[in-house]
Amino acid sequence: MKKTESHLIFGGCQQVWQHHSNTLDCLIAFSAFIPSKAETEPCPVLYFLSGLTCNEQNFTTKSGFQRYAEELGIIVIAPDTSPRGENIADDPNYDLGQGAGFYLNATEEPWMKNFKMYDYITNELRQIVKENFNTNGKQGIFGHSMGGLGALVLALRNPDIYQSVSAFSPILTPSIVTWGEKAFTAYLGNNKDDWKQYDPMQLILSGKVANEILIDQGLADPFYPAQLKPEMFADACKKMGINTTIRYQDNYDHSYYFIATFIEDHIKFHAKNLSK
Amino acid sequence: MKKTESHLIFGGCQQVWQHHSNTLDCLIAFSAFIPSKAETEPCPVLYFLSGLTCNEQNFTTKSGFQRYAEELGIIVIAPDTSPRGENIADDPNYDLGQGAGFYLNATEEPWMKNFKMYDYITNELRQIVKENFNTNGKQGIFGHSMGGLGALVLALRNPDIYQSVSAFSPILTPSIVTWGEKAFTAYLGNNKDDWKQYDPMQLILSGKVANEILIDQGLADPFYPAQLKPEMFADACKKMGINTTIRYQDNYDHSYYFIATFIEDHIKFHAKNLSK
Repeated sequence: MKKTESHLIFGGCQQVWQHHSNTLDCLIAFSAFIPSKAETEPCPVLYFLSGLTCNEQNFTTKSGFQRYAEELGIIVIAPDTSPRGENIADDPNYDLGQGAGFYLNATEEPWMKNFKMYDYITNELRQIVKENFNTNGKQGIFGHSMGGLGALVLALRNPDIYQSVSAFSPILTPSIVTWGEKAFTAYLGNNKDDWKQYDPMQLILSGKVANEILIDQGLADPFYPAQLKPEMFADACKKMGINTTIRYQDNYDHSYYFIATFIEDHIKFHAKNLSK
Repeated sequence: MKKTESHLIFGGCQQVWQHHSNTLDCLIAFSAFIPSKAETEPCPVLYFLSGLTCNEQNFTTKSGFQRYAEELGIIVIAPDTSPRGENIADDPNYDLGQGAGFYLNATEEPWMKNFKMYDYITNELRQIVKENFNTNGKQGIFGHSMGGLGALVLALRNPDIYQSVSAFSPILTPSIVTWGEKAFTAYLGNNKDDWKQYDPMQLILSGKVANEILIDQGLADPFYPAQLKPEMFADACKKMGINTTIRYQDNYDHSYYFIATFIEDHIKFHAKNLSK
């Protein structure tokens, strides 16, 4: 594992690491913010999963999360959104292939060899983080858009791993919106039963639970409501008794400017849940 | 003038504008943060000048300044760092040509037709800002690296325009460091007397004044001290009786992570000076 960047920010250390992933069978990068508190005591870990087209840099350079993660003593890990490389399958469109891993394990060709972001994040990356940083065993996860989908899917299916989950503008019903239908057909095939394990609303309806879910959705988001359907998700959560707070933010869009505005609230939400 | 981006952030509006500059004879972009306060009353304007390789996006997306500019009611303008375009002179190296305008008026070929960033910012852009936004006549300026040089040069030569000036890791003695020698030779020619009007330390020694100067310099900056010589500038300021605070920040480097950490202090410094 090679450290490719290291910068002091707000008193903590923002690093970028590159390693060969056995799960993905390629080189992959992730960013790691290490608060100064971790020099002397173990800290909780919070994973951020980014959206379509992003890599490990977008959230790291644009959201301003470090101020709050340093204040609250949280290690923050932001992985890339897919396997990458010249020999890795890809698609000319932004919403499939490299930069669009959808945090699942692909079962269809040509994707199944490398596109295993679900296993990479829940297993391999988690072990790497545990072995290399001063962690206390508490873990939370959040994300944006496709990464909001990933955060909810990983948390709902692995409550033993993730004690806290939130999302910005998440894809909540991938099985019935064009982004999800396209990606799931390509990665998982035509059997829609196989899609349910990667669909946050379907997971809720199947009985999966989370203690508490926080979601922010901008009302000037160009992908709302065509791709993003928080109302349907809220109905499913209500039906199943899941404590979900969805905040609709007037005039905010889908950008990192939106994330930057509300990142403090999300970091504090996770700090509270991870201190339990 | 065309608005190419508009995003709500922290309650204010982050815009990007594109226009044809008569001074530069090309299309150029600048970003404009408009605090919500400007909807009801005129606000001061703060210009941020970026460093080598940057355009209007770097500071805007990475520094997190908007939180503080919204709190304090300041319009913040971040222009590109040079004229740009296929028909504009350029150089294959990062430290000359497009992305490296050095905030001067070039007098040498092939640069003199378009490379007039000094006139563009002090005159044309200033008029555009005055005509299009709700300004109160108070103006400050700050910048990073090459842009810290630009901010100091513009402020020291135009105290009637700029009431406040600060810088992150500025090039303070361009006439005697390799970045400056290369750029000034190309843009201004070999007569070093012509360089003095764009050299912050020489301007101080020639008797130019500013009420108060704030500078932050990271001690893990890879360009310190070879390109960045705050100690020499401090000596010149002391000799000439200029009130200059230079803060040396342990372990911080030259990146926007450094700027993000201390941007709150700079915005507050300018808010204080612009409220006088």
